[in-house]
Amino acid sequence: MKVGIVGASGYSGEVLVKLLLGHPHVQLAAVTSRQHAGKPLSAVIPSLRGTAADALKFTTSDAAELAARDDIAVWFLALPHGTAADFAKALVPAGRKVIDLSADFRVADLATYEKYYGHHHAPELLPHARYVLPELTDPKWRSDIKLAAAPGCYPTSVIVPLAPLLSAGVITRQHIVANSFSGVSGAGKKAEEAYLYCERAESAKAYGLVKHRHLSEIEEQLSLRAGAPVVLQFNPHLAPMRRGIITTITAPAAPGATIDSLYAAWRAAYVGRPFISIIPSGETPDSAYVTGTNRVDLSAVHDPRTGNFVITSAEDNLVKGASGQAVQIMNLWLGFPETAGLL
Amino acid sequence: MKVGIVGASGYSGEVLVKLLLGHPHVQLAAVTSRQHAGKPLSAVIPSLRGTAADALKFTTSDAAELAARDDIAVWFLALPHGTAADFAKALVPAGRKVIDLSADFRVADLATYEKYYGHHHAPELLPHARYVLPELTDPKWRSDIKLAAAPGCYPTSVIVPLAPLLSAGVITRQHIVANSFSGVSGAGKKAEEAYLYCERAESAKAYGLVKHRHLSEIEEQLSLRAGAPVVLQFNPHLAPMRRGIITTITAPAAPGATIDSLYAAWRAAYVGRPFISIIPSGETPDSAYVTGTNRVDLSAVHDPRTGNFVITSAEDNLVKGASGQAVQIMNLWLGFPETAGLL
Amino acid sequence: MKVGIVGASGYSGEVLVKLLLGHPHVQLAAVTSRQHAGKPLSAVIPSLRGTAADALKFTTSDAAELAARDDIAVWFLALPHGTAADFAKALVPAGRKVIDLSADFRVADLATYEKYYGHHHAPELLPHARYVLPELTDPKWRSDIKLAAAPGCYPTSVIVPLAPLLSAGVITRQHIVANSFSGVSGAGKKAEEAYLYCERAESAKAYGLVKHRHLSEIEEQLSLRAGAPVVLQFNPHLAPMRRGIITTITAPAAPGATIDSLYAAWRAAYVGRPFISIIPSGETPDSAYVTGTNRVDLSAVHDPRTGNFVITSAEDNLVKGASGQAVQIMNLWLGFPETAGLL
Amino acid sequence: MKVGIVGASGYSGEVLVKLLLGHPHVQLAAVTSRQHAGKPLSAVIPSLRGTAADALKFTTSDAAELAARDDIAVWFLALPHGTAADFAKALVPAGRKVIDLSADFRVADLATYEKYYGHHHAPELLPHARYVLPELTDPKWRSDIKLAAAPGCYPTSVIVPLAPLLSAGVITRQHIVANSFSGVSGAGKKAEEAYLYCERAESAKAYGLVKHRHLSEIEEQLSLRAGAPVVLQFNPHLAPMRRGIITTITAPAAPGATIDSLYAAWRAAYVGRPFISIIPSGETPDSAYVTGTNRVDLSAVHDPRTGNFVITSAEDNLVKGASGQAVQIMNLWLGFPETAGLL
Repeated sequence: MKVGIVGASGYSGEVLVKLLLGHPHVQLAAVTSRQHAGKPLSAVIPSLRGTAADALKFTTSDAAELAARDDIAVWFLALPHGTAADFAKALVPAGRKVIDLSADFRVADLATYEKYYGHHHAPELLPHARYVLPELTDPKWRSDIKLAAAPGCYPTSVIVPLAPLLSAGVITRQHIVANSFSGVSGAGKKAEEAYLYCERAESAKAYGLVKHRHLSEIEEQLSLRAGAPVVLQFNPHLAPMRRGIITTITAPAAPGATIDSLYAAWRAAYVGRPFISIIPSGETPDSAYVTGTNRVDLSAVHDPRTGNFVITSAEDNLVKGASGQAVQIMNLWLGFPETAGLL
Repeated sequence: MKVGIVGASGYSGEVLVKLLLGHPHVQLAAVTSRQHAGKPLSAVIPSLRGTAADALKFTTSDAAELAARDDIAVWFLALPHGTAADFAKALVPAGRKVIDLSADFRVADLATYEKYYGHHHAPELLPHARYVLPELTDPKWRSDIKLAAAPGCYPTSVIVPLAPLLSAGVITRQHIVANSFSGVSGAGKKAEEAYLYCERAESAKAYGLVKHRHLSEIEEQLSLRAGAPVVLQFNPHLAPMRRGIITTITAPAAPGATIDSLYAAWRAAYVGRPFISIIPSGETPDSAYVTGTNRVDLSAVHDPRTGNFVITSAEDNLVKGASGQAVQIMNLWLGFPETAGLL
Repeated sequence: MKVGIVGASGYSGEVLVKLLLGHPHVQLAAVTSRQHAGKPLSAVIPSLRGTAADALKFTTSDAAELAARDDIAVWFLALPHGTAADFAKALVPAGRKVIDLSADFRVADLATYEKYYGHHHAPELLPHARYVLPELTDPKWRSDIKLAAAPGCYPTSVIVPLAPLLSAGVITRQHIVANSFSGVSGAGKKAEEAYLYCERAESAKAYGLVKHRHLSEIEEQLSLRAGAPVVLQFNPHLAPMRRGIITTITAPAAPGATIDSLYAAWRAAYVGRPFISIIPSGETPDSAYVTGTNRVDLSAVHDPRTGNFVITSAEDNLVKGASGQAVQIMNLWLGFPETAGLL
Repeated sequence: MKVGIVGASGYSGEVLVKLLLGHPHVQLAAVTSRQHAGKPLSAVIPSLRGTAADALKFTTSDAAELAARDDIAVWFLALPHGTAADFAKALVPAGRKVIDLSADFRVADLATYEKYYGHHHAPELLPHARYVLPELTDPKWRSDIKLAAAPGCYPTSVIVPLAPLLSAGVITRQHIVANSFSGVSGAGKKAEEAYLYCERAESAKAYGLVKHRHLSEIEEQLSLRAGAPVVLQFNPHLAPMRRGIITTITAPAAPGATIDSLYAAWRAAYVGRPFISIIPSGETPDSAYVTGTNRVDLSAVHDPRTGNFVITSAEDNLVKGASGQAVQIMNLWLGFPETAGLL
């Protein structure tokens, strides 16, 4: 089974290449990059020297040409929003399965998408697309859809802990506050002064307060689980590290809810899920412990003084927050073991 | 005017030594360290090679002996809580001014202190002590007291932004959530596995959730400003950097409060204060910009979607969060310019 | 085929556990740790949560008991020197294959060993042991020996580039200078002040100059290749990073030697070796590009001004410098593909 | 006494601004920056918020206009080579003292300069310029010259340890090998992919091997001291830190030379020099200990096995390696205490 990647010159593209080259059931047969077309992958991703990446070359990315390749069953789009939709428009009608790592198909409501991202390049595909957070999305998606939208990094770290608690009514919908702390790779491979080593080392700061784009995706998903609108405070921060996201959420306990009922809701939602690790109350997830894994680690405590739960999660923004989750989606879609190529 | 330091082998002690050696109006005449007694300061603090620290030696720390030194007018205590009170018991009756960097005299209410820290070694001194956050404490402290308790690192980063807003009624007392991210030096110079380079690099995590000791100090001070009990959620985190604290606070706006009224309250409280820097709404403080300074940088935004203010602050945990603030207290107490030795 | 690890609580032990758990042809059946006996591996190595390490428990480490386990064919010793020999004394006579990651059997000459490491605990095993650097050691070792000594981290980064050049007479034996730069994990998981995050971050320094223990191993191996004594200057340094070693070697070109003859010697020695990557002259290896791989990257330039070659190498000190190389040794010894579990 | 800076938007310019704002005997009256003209310094250098930098604005940089300002006695040039000479051409004839931090006047031999840097923009000024390494250059420079060339960062770390040893004949001129490891700020404030946080963190590598530009300056100076041509191997490296340079030099001991004669040569050369710290043999300089200081720390050991001395130095590349040294030059030129504004 052959797969391809459109646009693999960024950090998540690099991780996606590694995961697919090491995957037991698929062959990475095409990787496009306008910038690097013609070069072997290992010339651009030197950590892959001495692997199959020495033989595989980046190719140009003409949407029509790619759509014409009937040997490739699944395409991953690792592109900026907007551009991703442009490729989806060619690949979906050609009958290829598309797994999109961009934001283009994460928000079902077009008005909301356009409020946060501007003009949508392929709204006609929205009915054929689905937001797939494998542990939460109804498994029927596997047969229903033509395009899977892989969730964003911050949203995964917020939705995984909160969705089951809202569904079970363990927390209130009001006064939820999520603070996330992300490694610098979350900003992408941008040659901007703000992301230079000397600017980010020994530096921590909040940014994008009040209306970060990922809010649109977080609130739409949480509202679905809660069966009513959820509006929350989401405060993203940059941490002086390369990878990883930790998220700390303060949420008022619903009347009668206890730490046991919270953990019970998590266990019920995630029993048997290989990539969700529920940690005892009192221990806290550490971004270093999930780096390079497709895991989300979860923990929570109850504060009798405030009546709040304090909920913490950790993930690798480039794996469970992007490329690992995309491979997990592929595994489920194609009927492979969920953990294939991910352990 | 001669001053001394009891216990200067930790990170804040090291910064205190540097500030006092560079101070234009005082002479650092005694520095004690059980561990390093007999060694020149520059042998233990190599960054001070080639300075007066080559000549100054660490001495032993016998409380009675120190109290007997009538050439020294001010003693700084850079000691663990409990031990600090033991020294204060000898120095205060001897008529020395004491500036304590520990927690022993930060909490006026003895029951609260003992709930968070256990048995108090010198409760009889509490009436003669005052929690001095120079920008907020009534200036009368300068003549009233015998011992000044320097605020803690986290509390300074929370109280400086919130106190004026609670006094002015710009925010509510309910549903306040403070998330702080601290550099590793905040844990002190402890040879423990958890603080090894390989454990902390590329690692971010929450810790001490629900009942961190600094809460006692934060809530007592904020309740004083609000004129009513303030109970808040305080979530501390470790960030992979050496120095610096950033704090992000979510607080519901009081009815009718606007971002302008918030900034007005800050300006009224901090007009002319050299170490408080109020940054325009939309920009956020960065820990790297305050490293090595005695500043707190402040900023805030209003979120019309949630009705909350999101308030951010940054400070150097070892300077404004510890030793710099202690020197600022000394400057005011002895009638020196507030910024002497701190710019 | 079952294998076991004695002493897996350090950084290289942790990497060894991960490599063996992911290995396609062996089962990790026993892992000992005095400190952690009874705990699941994933409780001590949280990055392994959600894997087989949840089920596997650390056991105590009684040499006789381990030797009695006839289900385990290969034992890896991840122990301090001295202790490793004590275990080898029990396991080798019991007919178990032993792969030792310590220094105990790296030096064939007992007098040299004792000069650098002191008393040897099992000199009687030296005849049955061999220093196995898979790309350089005569393949006959696979049938000859009972114990394989895995090379050290620094030595691998020096011997891999130099051995073929000395054998081919491309460089002189005199005036060779090797400067190595290692990540902090090279110091092991020691709770000492010198290795705290705040001491090592933003810090670079030389250490162990003149007579670092690894010299004994480096010079014995290089002298073997050169057919005459090689004495070199080896200057190790600590770099503020977790993993990786880069080594920069200055070696005078032999009369008539060119950069082409140097590369020819490397290619002849390493043709078809999957873990040696020879980079074009002018490009330099980067520690970040080999992290997590079992590779050594090599490059060199000729300086017509000085008549020297400047030779650079990079490796992951915990993989090719320790546990990865040990697994590579096992693969060859047991007849598995050399890259099994290592790509 | 008023001074000005031309081009202060880089990392060393930022440090120079801080040093001059804090200097007791001069007033920083003009700071130019094409990029930031019109903005307050503290808007571009936020670490200066709350200082005089709030009032001082960047101005445009027209050479003729600057030359016309007769209130400014000393100009610092913090510019790329070539551009610096263009400004010197206007400022020197106008009778201003010029301290140039660029390479334009570091090399006295025009042919050598042009071999390494290309066309020289103001060769006519070379007779009026002097390479001033304050601890080594003949004090007569203070009255002789119109322009002082401040040494480069790497050269300072190599010349300070070697010059006295070559003058005293303690080491040979042959087979000298210098390996330097620099923090990333040494590359300047360039928005290039190579200097992004995610590229440099956890990364160490050699670069610019064989013919780094600083060699021209190093060899010209060392040859002067040795009274004969010195050709050495200089291997620069990037280390994952913001600031600091450590240099490790291997040099064969001259016949009869001992570690005592080496230290004697250093003490004779540097007795009473406040910024040279000679550390006991066996201890090694650490870049973290000199950060923020104008010091060079020196140490050496003798290796009886190889007959070499291994010499180590550490400095802050932005202070003693650039702006601090420039201020030290000003202090001496204007007759201020050498340490004014630098302790």
